[in-house]
Amino acid sequence: MSKVSLLSLLEAGSGEYVSGEEISRKLNVSRTAVWKQVRKLEADGYVIEAVPRLGYRLTGKPSRLSVQELLPKIETKRFGRQLHLLDVVPSTQDELRRLAEQGAPEGTLVIAEQQTNGRGRMGRSWVSPAGKGIWMSLLLRPPVPLPLTPQLTLLAAVALSRAISREVPVKIGIKWPNDLLVGGKKISGILLESAAEDERLRYVVVGLGISVNLDAEDYPAELLDKAISLKMASGAPINRSGLIAIILEEFERLYDLYLEQGFAPIRSLWEAHSVTLNSETTLYTPQGAVLGIPRGLDDMGGLKVEISDGSYRTIYSAEIGDRVVGS
Amino acid sequence: MSKVSLLSLLEAGSGEYVSGEEISRKLNVSRTAVWKQVRKLEADGYVIEAVPRLGYRLTGKPSRLSVQELLPKIETKRFGRQLHLLDVVPSTQDELRRLAEQGAPEGTLVIAEQQTNGRGRMGRSWVSPAGKGIWMSLLLRPPVPLPLTPQLTLLAAVALSRAISREVPVKIGIKWPNDLLVGGKKISGILLESAAEDERLRYVVVGLGISVNLDAEDYPAELLDKAISLKMASGAPINRSGLIAIILEEFERLYDLYLEQGFAPIRSLWEAHSVTLNSETTLYTPQGAVLGIPRGLDDMGGLKVEISDGSYRTIYSAEIGDRVVGS
Repeated sequence: MSKVSLLSLLEAGSGEYVSGEEISRKLNVSRTAVWKQVRKLEADGYVIEAVPRLGYRLTGKPSRLSVQELLPKIETKRFGRQLHLLDVVPSTQDELRRLAEQGAPEGTLVIAEQQTNGRGRMGRSWVSPAGKGIWMSLLLRPPVPLPLTPQLTLLAAVALSRAISREVPVKIGIKWPNDLLVGGKKISGILLESAAEDERLRYVVVGLGISVNLDAEDYPAELLDKAISLKMASGAPINRSGLIAIILEEFERLYDLYLEQGFAPIRSLWEAHSVTLNSETTLYTPQGAVLGIPRGLDDMGGLKVEISDGSYRTIYSAEIGDRVVGS
Repeated sequence: MSKVSLLSLLEAGSGEYVSGEEISRKLNVSRTAVWKQVRKLEADGYVIEAVPRLGYRLTGKPSRLSVQELLPKIETKRFGRQLHLLDVVPSTQDELRRLAEQGAPEGTLVIAEQQTNGRGRMGRSWVSPAGKGIWMSLLLRPPVPLPLTPQLTLLAAVALSRAISREVPVKIGIKWPNDLLVGGKKISGILLESAAEDERLRYVVVGLGISVNLDAEDYPAELLDKAISLKMASGAPINRSGLIAIILEEFERLYDLYLEQGFAPIRSLWEAHSVTLNSETTLYTPQGAVLGIPRGLDDMGGLKVEISDGSYRTIYSAEIGDRVVGS
């Protein structure tokens, strides 16, 4: 039984209930098989009401992103002006890196409805089902030297946090360097991949993964105490096109501010949104664990950590609290 | 007329003179054409003696690198242990980046007899004719955070300088960050290409281009006051295999020292070899020109420059003296 046949039966019902028995008979499969296919359609973003004795009723279809809907909302000068909207890709990062090597301009954006090989930090896989999140990669060609790249990581976190706060009534905290949390649970992932020649940045591919309209059943059970979607956190589904446009707007504005005034304003914003500062924590660096109290950022974008003897260490690469970094 | 036919005639001569007239007749080309082909063979590393009335005599063949000759000389643990010795490639950097993405281990080395698209800093082309230089790329997977990459640039310059000094009687000065000069002229180029995910370095491809046995006629005329080969500077040809082995040895030793003790010892060595410090110079940064006196390196590997008002600026990316950087 294919999903299409079940879908066509439900669509033929025009919003009325179609009994499980009828579907089972017409498709020549068991009632259990019907139920399983219903779950699969739901996973793809269809909304199906199931009522005992009445059957199944189609009440919602997955919202697909479209260039027609998206473009009029984008009010930036560069970010997202070169737009690649794709259905399924292994990873928007790999796609955009390829375009970057071919000379794509700053602001080029790759969005996918679904990633089959989405990656998070440290090569971890990233849950990115069809139609329910924002999985996108933005190309930067910043005229700043390589050692300042951590500043861009922090900038991305601030931009994304501000954009979401404008659209969704949730309180967001930034966990160093760039995880966005709502009630202690992760709602997004940011991954910057950079390529440099000597101390000159050739390009930075900023990957943004945002769990927008995922439902609890979209997550592996073991992630439910660590991750949450904006819909789950706020109680209402969110229009993805609108949110994408706002993200591009906030990102471009902050990036231009950064290029003009340097890191100082970004640093203040990051520190104001952070949930990492001023409480004792363990930072797992490639050189070993560091126990201390993060006090703020330094000029380069490193995290200043106060050690028990009162001295300070600046940390650039570490995982906080949960697990040890590979080197 | 192909070079092979001329070469086969000269080789058939077994070190005796073959008259230009005879060559001209057997190959059915003019005497001038014969002479032009002789020059081409010389450019490829053949040594041909030309004596009026006697003709041409083959007295030397280009020394080719071979794995058989090279491997026994390499006494390192990791550097160069995975060796790819190629004849002609567009660029050893691109070749090694491809291997790096496929998971090649630290120390993997790509050497080419000739590059057809060798690149220097800022995308400039790099003169790399067959058999006369060392054109190679070494893979590092350093467990250090991205902002410390400039330290590796400086480490590479020190390692190369020390290796050459052991093998060739020339006095080498390091021009910030990593040009090696003999008598003010450039003998080598170093280019580090790095790939990072957030603040974590995935890998660094260290490109080393060394003008070993090039002759004056191998250079474009406009480069002769800026560039020189080790052979031209020292007056004698240099065995490339031996030099490669020494470079790998010095590089691995310094790299291990760096991983163990940090940047401090590298910094001292770099400062001791530098010709950039303590004299006024103009540094062209992406943000504009800076006039000042470089005084030393900071902890991160940046160049501390004293400005006229006595204040200090740290520079990470700039060109010194000659031309403006693109951004």
